[in-house]
Amino acid sequence: MKVLVIGGCGFIGSHIVDALRSRGLSLRILDRSPERFRAALPGVDYVLHDLTRSPVPDAALQGVDVVVHLASTMVPATSNSDPAADIAENLIPTVRLLEAMRRQGTRRLVFLSSGGTVYGVPQRDPIAEDHPLNPISSYGIVKLAVEKYLHMEQALHGLSYVALRASNPYGPRQGRTGVQGVIGTYLWRHARQEPIEVWGDGSVVRDFLHVGDLADLCVRAVLSDQTGVFNAGSGEGTSIREVVEVIGRIVGREAEPVFRPGRSFDVPRVVLDVTRAQEAFGWRCRTALAPGIEETWGWVRQQAGL
Amino acid sequence: MKVLVIGGCGFIGSHIVDALRSRGLSLRILDRSPERFRAALPGVDYVLHDLTRSPVPDAALQGVDVVVHLASTMVPATSNSDPAADIAENLIPTVRLLEAMRRQGTRRLVFLSSGGTVYGVPQRDPIAEDHPLNPISSYGIVKLAVEKYLHMEQALHGLSYVALRASNPYGPRQGRTGVQGVIGTYLWRHARQEPIEVWGDGSVVRDFLHVGDLADLCVRAVLSDQTGVFNAGSGEGTSIREVVEVIGRIVGREAEPVFRPGRSFDVPRVVLDVTRAQEAFGWRCRTALAPGIEETWGWVRQQAGL
Repeated sequence: MKVLVIGGCGFIGSHIVDALRSRGLSLRILDRSPERFRAALPGVDYVLHDLTRSPVPDAALQGVDVVVHLASTMVPATSNSDPAADIAENLIPTVRLLEAMRRQGTRRLVFLSSGGTVYGVPQRDPIAEDHPLNPISSYGIVKLAVEKYLHMEQALHGLSYVALRASNPYGPRQGRTGVQGVIGTYLWRHARQEPIEVWGDGSVVRDFLHVGDLADLCVRAVLSDQTGVFNAGSGEGTSIREVVEVIGRIVGREAEPVFRPGRSFDVPRVVLDVTRAQEAFGWRCRTALAPGIEETWGWVRQQAGL
Repeated sequence: MKVLVIGGCGFIGSHIVDALRSRGLSLRILDRSPERFRAALPGVDYVLHDLTRSPVPDAALQGVDVVVHLASTMVPATSNSDPAADIAENLIPTVRLLEAMRRQGTRRLVFLSSGGTVYGVPQRDPIAEDHPLNPISSYGIVKLAVEKYLHMEQALHGLSYVALRASNPYGPRQGRTGVQGVIGTYLWRHARQEPIEVWGDGSVVRDFLHVGDLADLCVRAVLSDQTGVFNAGSGEGTSIREVVEVIGRIVGREAEPVFRPGRSFDVPRVVLDVTRAQEAFGWRCRTALAPGIEETWGWVRQQAGL
């Protein structure tokens, strides 16, 4: 089986690639830049290509049985500054990908959607997949629109797909730029002796998922014939304040957080009900938050030369 | 009160403009071309502008209290041939419109959504607004995505909006090109002594709404402070076969329809539950199908010089 991983050089992609390789699958990666923290992997076929500039080349899909599509140019904050760019860079390339897959006869797709944004302000806790879908970020609307195009492609042209509505993934190789997730951001700030910033009062609750668990779920989705939309989270809620405390204990550095004004598009609490994914894929989240952060801290220290 | 009608020179737009004028409202129309069947209306301010080429000019919004947005470059059939173009031409210009309205302080919008496509294959009959949203046309997905951006703009920036999920509008000034609605298409074909074509076996059921009733509802939405999503239909289902028969009786021409293969994106039956719009706006659909078709036939005959 040959798998094309679009966005396979990113934080999440690199872990999915590792998990797919460990199963002995044949791999092609399409990304606009190489991996940031590692050299090219032996035996993997790389296609350097920017989907925001031109559609996926048919050649990249040749011989491919399953596509895993993780690429995104946005995070929620940036998407709301320029929704038109979000649509142009993420929605349009994805519908073009679906057309190219149809032309090439590639009929299986695993898409990374967003459990943290597609639901909007939660009306239930935890959130199951049938919760109303009222995003308050462009990021969430674009992810939702892609899900709708996947459904349409299935209904009209027989696509088999899984959309994983991921919560907040964290782990080694998460970017240090401060937009890709609070755990990575805080660990890097500790490594550099910088202050820890919190949007709002720290009461915001998120469902943090170790990237290795997400990669495991993704590989199970690639190898199964299940179809539809699945939450992908730990099922446990942790407040930002608790994250700050756990991290403080692990890194052994006192750092009273600096509180910044809350952001309008941050919903107060997102904890996912992951029963559907557990039952469909026999999957369990295995890495608890503290050991997961400890492992990530080990990687950050190594990167920072500490 | 000043109203900007985007798409005000189109079939539906021209009727909404008439209804708004009869209430004495100050009107500006933005469209990419003038009205096809009438001369410019006295006292109306026209802006010829193509939203697919550049965003709505801020000047077009100056002094405007309410925007009515009806413009679309697509119908369901064309949207599925090129979803990327549908997104680029309809979704992106609409999110840019929302940004321009925010800059200009215009905080009320009535948007024409699509009751015939946003729900996908009906699971209930009639369809209320809380029915699942699984479109099988790009047209429906783009309309739905716009609704989601309206919700986001309301949640984050205080937009007040009404989205009217219209069923199948018909009436005078409907285009004759054969894509804009089956009643207009059939009447024009009768006028030209052409055969009547039916996609599928004629059992497809739609909810036909006289454009005057839709315009009445739209004006009520403009003048109210209600907000949210509302079905806009007659609440009655009529099969294509019945439409063919009613039209045959009215035009007095025998024409056995030519049956063509069904189209994959046509759902079998769409009849809207319009209770919400009736209660919110004190609105009722007043024109029954046969008299509505008779009126439309009168207009087609006049246009065709019969």
